Amino acid sequence: MNEIEPTERTRVRRVPQRAVYDRETIHRIFDEALIAHVAFSHDEQPFVLPMAFVRIDDAIYLHGSTRARMLEGICDGRPVCVTATLVDGLVLARSAFHHSMNYRSAAVIGTGTAVMERGRMLEVLEALSEKLTPGRWPEVRQPNEQEMKATRVVEIPIDEASAKVRTGPPADEKADMSFPVWAGTVPIALRYAKPVSDPNLSPSVALPDHVRQLSDRRGKNHD
Amino acid sequence: MNEIEPTERTRVRRVPQRAVYDRETIHRIFDEALIAHVAFSHDEQPFVLPMAFVRIDDAIYLHGSTRARMLEGICDGRPVCVTATLVDGLVLARSAFHHSMNYRSAAVIGTGTAVMERGRMLEVLEALSEKLTPGRWPEVRQPNEQEMKATRVVEIPIDEASAKVRTGPPADEKADMSFPVWAGTVPIALRYAKPVSDPNLSPSVALPDHVRQLSDRRGKNHD
Repeated sequence: MNEIEPTERTRVRRVPQRAVYDRETIHRIFDEALIAHVAFSHDEQPFVLPMAFVRIDDAIYLHGSTRARMLEGICDGRPVCVTATLVDGLVLARSAFHHSMNYRSAAVIGTGTAVMERGRMLEVLEALSEKLTPGRWPEVRQPNEQEMKATRVVEIPIDEASAKVRTGPPADEKADMSFPVWAGTVPIALRYAKPVSDPNLSPSVALPDHVRQLSDRRGKNHD
Repeated sequence: MNEIEPTERTRVRRVPQRAVYDRETIHRIFDEALIAHVAFSHDEQPFVLPMAFVRIDDAIYLHGSTRARMLEGICDGRPVCVTATLVDGLVLARSAFHHSMNYRSAAVIGTGTAVMERGRMLEVLEALSEKLTPGRWPEVRQPNEQEMKATRVVEIPIDEASAKVRTGPPADEKADMSFPVWAGTVPIALRYAKPVSDPNLSPSVALPDHVRQLSDRRGKNHD
């Protein structure tokens, strides 16, 4: 098992049996999550924003406008935390106290750097696009020079990272096992609904397979 | 419209036309989100964790173990940020550059205080339970003294808060409108799947309506 060595800052202290430092598990959580919550601090006041992101190899990539102050701060070396969470279900116990959620959450902390090389920036943007809508990138109008100049891509290495995972049924007290209430889990997942065409779309343009497949792909996991 | 006055710290700077300061919209986002991402800082390094939470009136409530260091830090006056995000869909534009997501995100910053009064703690725990599984609280085994002593409830007033919302079709450049690729949105929503009984559940206990209704309630919004 390829583990990321937990540091003083990433070792999970609360409910340590849920901690995961396995690199593959951490990668898989980042890969399945559509967004991450990205935090930076200013005078000990944290700020958290949702962002699209992509993992490639051992790094997380964010992107945005060159005018976005948060990305500018990251490139200036401001410490950052990127956390992605998948809510997998409600855990309904017999006791109020043992109610919980099943979830998978991965967090990386550290500092980022700007990706400056044009070819690498494009690779990252393509990877992000292919993560969210596999097969779409080659079909869309590619970024022009002005758009590339307005875009900042930031790399955050997955050096200090950990995950926390809860799975399985509720963990009630022995004394509660005969309490007369239903107990179990209610799985939760994201679902893509029917695509909605842009009102300005030319009627001659058909729905491509790469969009239709989004609903098909996710639908399977849900029942 | 009941607006929360934006401060220097909560005014949305990037894409300000997506900013919302209306209290009702902010409340609705917090009420629909199952979890929030909660951040605190230590020596300018932010840490972000997913947590269940509930809004009551003009405050956010977190809860956890009295041994949880983050909640302890909040009670000691450490500044916190609580952000909740609903991903509503993929926005597929004709140009790579204008791809986006539809989402609603609300954030509150500030400091929290411990809720110490036992009756109020119970009200908060009941409100959290009723938010996630309406109708369940009266049916479960209520918290005992030991469990209440092990639980910390923290209140964070919604004084400094803002939301950011994107809705609608892609915003392509005029020059791209005839580019021959499908454009539009793919709505995304959470879906509850079939409940899974605890393997130790007595066969005489039936699935209650409050659990069955979870899948029914959400299923409607998705197609």
